[in-house]
Parts: sequence; C-alpha cells; structure tokens
Amino acid sequence: MSAKPTPPTHLPDPNNLRDVFAYWVRLKRVEKGWSQERLALECELDRTYVSAVERSRWNVSLANIERIAQALDVKAWTLIKPPSI
Amino acid sequence: MSAKPTPPTHLPDPNNLRDVFAYWVRLKRVEKGWSQERLALECELDRTYVSAVERSRWNVSLANIERIAQALDVKAWTLIKPPSI
Repeated sequence: MSAKPTPPTHLPDPNNLRDVFAYWVRLKRVEKGWSQERLALECELDRTYVSAVERSRWNVSLANIERIAQALDVKAWTLIKPPSI
Repeated sequence: MSAKPTPPTHLPDPNNLRDVFAYWVRLKRVEKGWSQERLALECELDRTYVSAVERSRWNVSLANIERIAQALDVKAWTLIKPPSI
C-alpha cells in the first residue's frame, strides 16, 4: 500500500538543518528504491517518525542521525551538509 | 574561576558521532579562547549542557547543533565529520 518513492521536489533551505536533513534522507531513500516503511524497518524507527523527519518536522538527535545514516549507507555528516547548487 | 581552555587530548572515535561532535566543539571553542561559560552564553544554553556535550554525554539534536555551530562560526556539518588523520 506504499506510495511509489518520489525524490524531493525542491532544494532545501541551506540555513535550515532540519530541511537539509529531510532533503537528503528522502533523496537517499528514494535512490535505494525504499519506501518510508522500509527505511523505518532498516533503522528500527517508527514509520511516522521517518515521515516526520522527511517533512522537516522533527528535531532529530545524533543517535538517530547515526542510525539513519547507517541504514542509508552514507556518512552522517553528508546528511546535514547543504547540497551545492 | 574558569579553568584555562585546553584543547582535546585525543582524537575522537570516528564511528561515534557524540565523540566527534564533542571533539570539534571543544577544539573550536578553545581556538576562540572561550571558556565553556562563554560558549554557553553565546548560544544561550546552560554551562552544564556545554560541559556534557564536550564529554560526549549528550545526544544533541539538530536545533542545538545549529546553535552551537553558529556561536562557533562554523558550518554545522563540519562538527560531525570525523577529523582526517
């Protein structure tokens, strides 16, 4: 019942860390062809948490940045670095 | 009554984000010649919070990573990137 994964539709505000993190999580997840459910499962977080993260709604902490980065096979710091335009 | 600022005495565990963050916060603070009290004041956080962060005791969230980065005049992502050896 999952929607087809779609990448972010706009670049994040580079001065907003939540936005930058949301952008990269969604992009990297979609690159893997994963649903939010799948990512949530991979990092043992709730699907609603992953959804909130991707909507820049959550003030994620280091421990969960690390879990998400490991699930996505990327370095944690790359998830909070604004994309170069 | 502050102790003289001293830089980190060892490199952080590159696989431990708290450790990496603690390392950079302490290093950048000391480079500015700031006490923990001064850094706390600059980012409107408690001195005991800054102290806990520098001892890798705190699971810091994005909002506070951003505040600390702004106070230290560095990009947030540089504070969680393991130092190259």
